[in-house]
Amino acid sequence: MAFDYLTSTPLKEAITGYKAVLSENGFAPQTETVPVQEAAFCITAEPVYAGICSPHYPASAMDGIAVPAGLTYNATETTPMTLRNDQFVTVDTGDPIPEGCDAVIMIEDVVRDTPDTVKIYKSVAPWQNIRQIGEDICAGEMILGSFMEITPAAVGAMIAGGITQVKVLRAPLVGFIPTGDEIVPPTTDPAPGDILEFNSSIFSAMLKEWHCKTRIYPIVPDVKDEIRAALKVALRECDFVLLGAGSSAGRDDYSTEMIAEAGDVYCHGIAIKPGKPAILGYHKKQPIVGIPGYPVSGIIVLKEIVKPLVDMWLRAPQLSKQTCSATLTKPLVTSLKYEEFVRVRMGEVAGKIMASPLSRGSGVVSSFMKADGIIRVPQNLEGYVAGDEVEVELLRPLSQIEHTLVAIGSHDPLLDEVADLLHTRYPSLFMMSSHVGSMGGLMAIKRGETHIAGTHLLDERDGSYNVSFIRKRFPKGGIKLVECVNRVQGLMLAKGNPLNIRSVSDLTKKGLRYVNRQKGSGTRILIDYLTKKEGIDSSKIYGYDREEFTHTSVAAQIASGTADAGMGILSAAKLYDLDFVPVCMEQYDLLIPDTAFDTPMIQCLLEVLQSKEFAARLDALGGYELDHPGRIRPCFEEDSTAKHA
Amino acid sequence: MAFDYLTSTPLKEAITGYKAVLSENGFAPQTETVPVQEAAFCITAEPVYAGICSPHYPASAMDGIAVPAGLTYNATETTPMTLRNDQFVTVDTGDPIPEGCDAVIMIEDVVRDTPDTVKIYKSVAPWQNIRQIGEDICAGEMILGSFMEITPAAVGAMIAGGITQVKVLRAPLVGFIPTGDEIVPPTTDPAPGDILEFNSSIFSAMLKEWHCKTRIYPIVPDVKDEIRAALKVALRECDFVLLGAGSSAGRDDYSTEMIAEAGDVYCHGIAIKPGKPAILGYHKKQPIVGIPGYPVSGIIVLKEIVKPLVDMWLRAPQLSKQTCSATLTKPLVTSLKYEEFVRVRMGEVAGKIMASPLSRGSGVVSSFMKADGIIRVPQNLEGYVAGDEVEVELLRPLSQIEHTLVAIGSHDPLLDEVADLLHTRYPSLFMMSSHVGSMGGLMAIKRGETHIAGTHLLDERDGSYNVSFIRKRFPKGGIKLVECVNRVQGLMLAKGNPLNIRSVSDLTKKGLRYVNRQKGSGTRILIDYLTKKEGIDSSKIYGYDREEFTHTSVAAQIASGTADAGMGILSAAKLYDLDFVPVCMEQYDLLIPDTAFDTPMIQCLLEVLQSKEFAARLDALGGYELDHPGRIRPCFEEDSTAKHA
Repeated sequence: MAFDYLTSTPLKEAITGYKAVLSENGFAPQTETVPVQEAAFCITAEPVYAGICSPHYPASAMDGIAVPAGLTYNATETTPMTLRNDQFVTVDTGDPIPEGCDAVIMIEDVVRDTPDTVKIYKSVAPWQNIRQIGEDICAGEMILGSFMEITPAAVGAMIAGGITQVKVLRAPLVGFIPTGDEIVPPTTDPAPGDILEFNSSIFSAMLKEWHCKTRIYPIVPDVKDEIRAALKVALRECDFVLLGAGSSAGRDDYSTEMIAEAGDVYCHGIAIKPGKPAILGYHKKQPIVGIPGYPVSGIIVLKEIVKPLVDMWLRAPQLSKQTCSATLTKPLVTSLKYEEFVRVRMGEVAGKIMASPLSRGSGVVSSFMKADGIIRVPQNLEGYVAGDEVEVELLRPLSQIEHTLVAIGSHDPLLDEVADLLHTRYPSLFMMSSHVGSMGGLMAIKRGETHIAGTHLLDERDGSYNVSFIRKRFPKGGIKLVECVNRVQGLMLAKGNPLNIRSVSDLTKKGLRYVNRQKGSGTRILIDYLTKKEGIDSSKIYGYDREEFTHTSVAAQIASGTADAGMGILSAAKLYDLDFVPVCMEQYDLLIPDTAFDTPMIQCLLEVLQSKEFAARLDALGGYELDHPGRIRPCFEEDSTAKHA
Repeated sequence: MAFDYLTSTPLKEAITGYKAVLSENGFAPQTETVPVQEAAFCITAEPVYAGICSPHYPASAMDGIAVPAGLTYNATETTPMTLRNDQFVTVDTGDPIPEGCDAVIMIEDVVRDTPDTVKIYKSVAPWQNIRQIGEDICAGEMILGSFMEITPAAVGAMIAGGITQVKVLRAPLVGFIPTGDEIVPPTTDPAPGDILEFNSSIFSAMLKEWHCKTRIYPIVPDVKDEIRAALKVALRECDFVLLGAGSSAGRDDYSTEMIAEAGDVYCHGIAIKPGKPAILGYHKKQPIVGIPGYPVSGIIVLKEIVKPLVDMWLRAPQLSKQTCSATLTKPLVTSLKYEEFVRVRMGEVAGKIMASPLSRGSGVVSSFMKADGIIRVPQNLEGYVAGDEVEVELLRPLSQIEHTLVAIGSHDPLLDEVADLLHTRYPSLFMMSSHVGSMGGLMAIKRGETHIAGTHLLDERDGSYNVSFIRKRFPKGGIKLVECVNRVQGLMLAKGNPLNIRSVSDLTKKGLRYVNRQKGSGTRILIDYLTKKEGIDSSKIYGYDREEFTHTSVAAQIASGTADAGMGILSAAKLYDLDFVPVCMEQYDLLIPDTAFDTPMIQCLLEVLQSKEFAARLDALGGYELDHPGRIRPCFEEDSTAKHA
């Protein structure tokens, strides 16, 4: 059997048709009866009618005496009436009204006259000061309709209405079968070629958030008989079955074949990116969905294919997603053939919500973790240009995005420490950073996309940092340069320095594999400058074009043995226990536009930079010197008169 | 010991001071280490740094052959190169890159030449088509900062980063002790005077929603020694202790005394309504909060006092609450002395969000169930007038409120059935109804507060229904009168008709207790008309001033034996198995403003009225006749030419 027909069905068409086919086959919510106390946040399966009234007896609404109202007609403030003890009953709030009484006189209007009598100073009308039967809920009244969420207060109302059991929609049990020869359970120390099985953990958390129950099956190797057997068990035990893609060559066909054997394949291949190789299958009324192996693809397929089925099962109202309009910070080129889901980070800068596309690699799970929202780029659209207003589906509350400090610029691990200290000190503040290099940061500031930009740009002419670049790019000012740290730059080398590298001039050694930083980064500018100064032809350095975006990833390549040397900061070398040849001390500053400078967010940031905790964190990282972090460096004339923070 | 000092501390002051005292005493989040797979939606207690890179080995990004890039420099489309089998290794996507290789040529650019050689048609640069180590996550990188929520994707990122255990904030364990001699566990058949214990169910659902664990203790009678013992156990076992108010006379003092004995009372009495008698106590670092017994008061105290403590413990960011601006439909008179929390129902009518205050009784738990939002009326404000714009804290998503059909007018149980059928057929539509009588409904339509109004107004002059009232109130038209049902009105009587009542003229019988509907209701207008017609002085009917707001609650009073007769519809009498003397058949119509008529919501409603399901539900209720429900009744000249639905 060959399943080479990978279709490209538009998402909407696929899901509509799939739901219709499932419905025809009997896919429908199942119900169960549960004790009311356990029913909170469940969905009712039928109307709930009160069994009893609440209150279920006429109750005194006051502390006082219960009387037949007719007895009291003549009592007034000036002409009090006397009642014998056998004509009334003392009651507290909530007490039942005794037989023969139909009103309560407040205790304040009753005065003990003799041991056998009281005087009353007010008359009462029938049923005055009494909580009537059914004041809250009447027996037979519909407390809650069908398919309504049971709120905590609704639990109370049902108990008050004499309900002890309630019929609700049963949460679907969703089974997930991870497959693949190379897939191994989570471990701290995987062997090369092992792929850690984390999809099941991501998916079960998502499914639980959607009110499903989950069952995760053991990892199945790429062996047809074993997949066949696993599918059989899952179909017997679960309501929905999700089959993870294996890692065999032609892995999609493999899953398609197995699903087709177990039931039917409605559609294989959706015009979405990521997520294209999804398989929409079923066995009678049970959905069987083939989930692509790459985590980001899998997450999208769960959200776009599985979630609608869960909503159908739990009859969740199809409410519009939380969206907001945002300005795109980079051009976004997308495929005409697919509807694309692009993860973005967001921040509010100078009153405008900005959206920065994250890595679009399907394997980059951290991009989903960092994402604040998703842009859905329709099929038949080639994308957007930077500055376009786009609609973003929010993954985080807008109020959180509005309280997020945006840092776009040069990378330094200290930024993560600052983010951590900031949020620890001010729980409502968040910080996100993107690493685009110093020049990228300058440009982001200019375009109004960021609150701060880390920068360490060396002026070759005089060895100064940052100031001349800023004067040139911001001739009219409008920004402040804030001192952050001095840090040691140098050559990161394999442990023990086996190639015996002493300086930049050794980088052309035969057999040496260099790993570089991307163009526009301060570190790249530094190495370009140093090689030029030494008269080295950089094209003679093997791997000079191999670019990484952070100090840490350069260090990681060297530590793993795929490179021998790279320029970077001491803290990154220390992190990976590498050898290090110091080259220079450089100035790493923060550029902050004036429009942001006086906001509470930036003031909190400056406080963090000046804190003992920050100094302690840098000390632990190593390779930093602090002078006056948070101080404004004079850049323009007006700065020299500015108060130092 | 006497604790008669019930203070009236402003809420903000109370909670700020209480948090400060608790902090001083060591109140702080606790941590625990959990497997990453179970950590979704927990809050990190410290930064999480990756242990390994992801990918942790250089992996092929393509199916193809791995080669040393240097070997391939001369290959082009026109001048292919030949490689021997020992010069390359075949790799699939995800495979590790073999020792000595540093690039992958896509399989499409490779042609098998001889059994021992291949031809390649493209050169590759070092590291081309390879997923670099750390492309997703670098070892040592901060994956997540302190006090961040662990999303499903973050679980995946942590596993990918070689993390198996994570330190998170432990959910606080909150214990609740219900107290009171009359409190009984939930039952379908409580005795008079019994109060069903539903607070614990409401509170535990709320606490679970706030990510707490809960422990509910058995009901403790109003006996000091037993309360003392229960508090001791709860303080030993839980992080927070909530003590439900007992039902002894002077119940607040009782709890205060017990809490003071177990620890300290920081404050007793908050200037909020409901919720005033809250007690803010503590034992060392453990909060002990005295919760008022009335459910609505208790819910408010949980939200306003306990929730901030939970947020402090779980370091939840203090995000602004979801609010919206709405137009008040009724005047709201509040106390100068208290900050008042008024529950409201909301709906969007003709583009305006309207807020209608619900019953403010602290015992009316159904009011919280029905509430869409809460208006906080500040202390020192006497309230608002109808039409005022007010800020409402949302309890339901705004999108749901916008899809809610608002029905304000005359009561009929059929409205609940319509709401149920509407939501069942259209899961995204909701319907809410308020019972203010026919005249109240007319007025609500006039003020633009409702989409529909049930109405059955008898014109005494000619026995016709509704039309003359509408012509008088809406001389310019702008509304449609839509046929709903004909229904039987009559006298509802105690089972077996022990007082032998045959007609309205029997209502003045000695010993007969009548229960009436409120002024302005169609049924009240009917009974006023009937008594007048019969020449009966209604002041001679005992209980004629006793007013209930629904047919059901009139029936409930008769069924419970606190009244002998009341006017109402047959379906209500049937519900309570009462005797019934039919008096007339009346027309119950729906009034719909033209502005709402063509909206999808109303069109869906008309569809429901014309459905078989609706007819079946009415048949089950009894006492209804259907002619052409959903048809427009000609009221104005233009209606006679209108198309009938």
